Amino acid sequence: MKRKTHIRQTEPFRWENVPLLAYKEEDGTHFKSVTRQVLFGGGEQAGAELRYFEIAPGGHSTLERHGHVHCVMVVRGRGRALVGREIHELGQHSLVYIPPLTWHQFRATDEEALGFLCLVRRDRDRPQRPTAGELASLRADASVGAFIRV
Amino acid sequence: MKRKTHIRQTEPFRWENVPLLAYKEEDGTHFKSVTRQVLFGGGEQAGAELRYFEIAPGGHSTLERHGHVHCVMVVRGRGRALVGREIHELGQHSLVYIPPLTWHQFRATDEEALGFLCLVRRDRDRPQRPTAGELASLRADASVGAFIRV
Repeated sequence: MKRKTHIRQTEPFRWENVPLLAYKEEDGTHFKSVTRQVLFGGGEQAGAELRYFEIAPGGHSTLERHGHVHCVMVVRGRGRALVGREIHELGQHSLVYIPPLTWHQFRATDEEALGFLCLVRRDRDRPQRPTAGELASLRADASVGAFIRV
Repeated sequence: MKRKTHIRQTEPFRWENVPLLAYKEEDGTHFKSVTRQVLFGGGEQAGAELRYFEIAPGGHSTLERHGHVHCVMVVRGRGRALVGREIHELGQHSLVYIPPLTWHQFRATDEEALGFLCLVRRDRDRPQRPTAGELASLRADASVGAFIRV
């Protein structure tokens, strides 16, 4: 089948023939109310994938780290992100760069969904979740401890 | 210097410490009223770059093709794109995929700027512009001929 060169937005933040996916394949309590749409997959010689994630009000992504980097642009709503030991306030078109092996977590506000584009390289390692010792170390910083959800 | 993990939007479609660049280094009549901002460069292990282009009302990008693909999301305004022999109407969050060696050109409307994200692989070939013979072939299709600006 010839690949389509134009993918219309059919309603806000949904696209023609782009499936709405679960954020992660496994179930778990380490994330809450997140969906994923792969806007451009890695099969197209772009070297990278562009995904759209949406976190419902009150939800959060997994607290994790990995060797590959994330390049993020917020396109819907507001929220906050932990990157390393820093907590960033995010609004429309904020950019976030997640360096290699850096703990990170995104949270929507309680009132609004947080939607963002996330660019990753095609070939990438699996995310790691914190061990008990790493969690204790993260929680040693009070503001980080108050932010994270696991 | 430690790389910043959060780049705020300082005003609509401008970001902290992200320079506003000329669309192309050379001058020319083959494009009109286009700017470029590199949001995430290729030096960060992402395998790809994410750039933001903005075409002023009435402006257009270069009619060109190249071996690397473009993955595009519109984030501002409206416009149209030629991809191969197809002309697509573009609005907020439209996605456009430019396959390898496919002629393409973006145009803003006369009333509104057209702003879009464009993902490209880090290592990529230089764009080609059409020869006189290729232009004649493109113009053999009346709707393409009416669209293109060279």
